[in-house]
Amino acid sequence: MEVLANVDLVKKANIYFNGNVTSRTFIDTDGSKKSLGIMMPGEYNFGTNEPELMEILAGEVEVKLAGEDTWNTYTENTSFNVKGNSDFDIKVKTITDYCCSYIK
Amino acid sequence: MEVLANVDLVKKANIYFNGNVTSRTFIDTDGSKKSLGIMMPGEYNFGTNEPELMEILAGEVEVKLAGEDTWNTYTENTSFNVKGNSDFDIKVKTITDYCCSYIK
Repeated sequence: MEVLANVDLVKKANIYFNGNVTSRTFIDTDGSKKSLGIMMPGEYNFGTNEPELMEILAGEVEVKLAGEDTWNTYTENTSFNVKGNSDFDIKVKTITDYCCSYIK
Repeated sequence: MEVLANVDLVKKANIYFNGNVTSRTFIDTDGSKKSLGIMMPGEYNFGTNEPELMEILAGEVEVKLAGEDTWNTYTENTSFNVKGNSDFDIKVKTITDYCCSYIK
């Protein structure tokens, strides 16, 4: 069981898409901002400000990055990167647990 | 914005009721175990081991403790206690963000 030690955790949740996507923001020990979240099955589009690393901790998603034609599948213990000031389409096939890291 | 500093956060989520209830476990600086969670609208029954303090951070729930006949309503910034080795029924009226503290 992986434990993230000594992080600063924002108590209130972030709630998106009527609660179908929720996350908790935390600051890791290196000062970087990350969030742990849950996505219920459905189709969503997310915009980015900073570049992001999206790790899938459980579940299954299909992702199409802005400017690409291909959908790629990600499952437990896989990850994908998203450019800053961009967006991506995501089809959540089964309830998905993820960690998003915002890259400086 | 309340931030819980220097906590140890379990990376993977706890997923209950087909994802309609999810939570993240963390250990607070005093060593106590807590979880931050989201409940989607619906009706659930939860059992306890340790006594619990349930703080409602956002949303609205109605709660009936084991052995009681009365439903009580809790909304943002209210809380209720549950005995150990007990259970409670909860009707989640709107998506609810909560913090559960397990009392030793």
